[in-house]
Amino acid sequence: MEKLILHEYAASGNCYKIRLTAAHLGIRLERHEYDIMKGETRTPEFLTNINPLGRIPVLQAGTRFLPESNAACFYVADGSRLIPEDRFQRADMLRWMFFEQYHHEPNIATLRFWFMYMGVDALSELQRAQIPAKRLAGDAALQQMDDHLALRNWFVGEEISLADICLYAYTHVAEGGGFDPSLYPAVSQWLARMASHERHIVMEP
Amino acid sequence: MEKLILHEYAASGNCYKIRLTAAHLGIRLERHEYDIMKGETRTPEFLTNINPLGRIPVLQAGTRFLPESNAACFYVADGSRLIPEDRFQRADMLRWMFFEQYHHEPNIATLRFWFMYMGVDALSELQRAQIPAKRLAGDAALQQMDDHLALRNWFVGEEISLADICLYAYTHVAEGGGFDPSLYPAVSQWLARMASHERHIVMEP
Repeated sequence: MEKLILHEYAASGNCYKIRLTAAHLGIRLERHEYDIMKGETRTPEFLTNINPLGRIPVLQAGTRFLPESNAACFYVADGSRLIPEDRFQRADMLRWMFFEQYHHEPNIATLRFWFMYMGVDALSELQRAQIPAKRLAGDAALQQMDDHLALRNWFVGEEISLADICLYAYTHVAEGGGFDPSLYPAVSQWLARMASHERHIVMEP
Repeated sequence: MEKLILHEYAASGNCYKIRLTAAHLGIRLERHEYDIMKGETRTPEFLTNINPLGRIPVLQAGTRFLPESNAACFYVADGSRLIPEDRFQRADMLRWMFFEQYHHEPNIATLRFWFMYMGVDALSELQRAQIPAKRLAGDAALQQMDDHLALRNWFVGEEISLADICLYAYTHVAEGGGFDPSLYPAVSQWLARMASHERHIVMEP
């Protein structure tokens, strides 16, 4: 594979999931760090050369640029044991990755960002008004994961897949968004299973 | 492939994109219709047998059930010409499918649903307060699509792919959400290109 460069902000779970995918496969990523709190992804250089939307992560593969964290994980893992060979299981893995971006990240990661990085005092009135709905939807997502994991070790099939890696990123720091992990015992056991994997790396650099 | 049954609500773009994928590939889908406005996806039968979350679409493949519309499209199209063979292009296709579910559908489809199916008078105060932000974010998504399509016919590579099909579903009815298609000339030309494809089917049954 060509040289891979991850344009990232290390405390972002969306960036971490790409590093975690690469770690599981022993693939080297060069890391370029940008501090989103200082506007470093809004500079003319970043907007011109990396991503006109000013968002991270962006995976650079040679001279091509790939935004969207779960697509970047798929690129890194394509053809590997992290993507099931069975056709239904492969789609089911993507099902959980779409679930992550639609039902999980906009609630759990957003509340974590609001509470831990922006601070409640800095939130707009509209953001504050959305907290209860995001709390409910985030808890519903965690409950759905817990129901699913009550009967199995991994999200899809009998092995770890990208579905586990992508969902791990913001689930293991959900407490920062005000969620209570003790309410979800099967999720807690799965988090411990993930963290004890021989290829695991932690989020903070 | 085993028998495919689509559990759906025909006016939903998320259901339509699965039918459109199947039409492009000449694959037969049996259709089971549920009226979400009458609560037909909240019955004990639906929750027990189809999807405990009470959401459509769900693609049934034999005895297995697959929620999440874009994952269902991937299942139907896996191994076909709608998924690029090139590794980067395949990930780039997924990039636009994740873009669709994160930046496009929650804004454009949600406003369409609020305006055309619920009606403004039935919206909660919190929903009403979110309209301006969803309008801005939906227009930003359409602008990003327009910038991308200004230089190419299809989202990825030189052929139609799942990225086009998944993005077509709610873009071609964005007017129902109050968006003005004339602001996005490259998107409008791409919509016409999609609609004139020999395999195209319209959304309403």
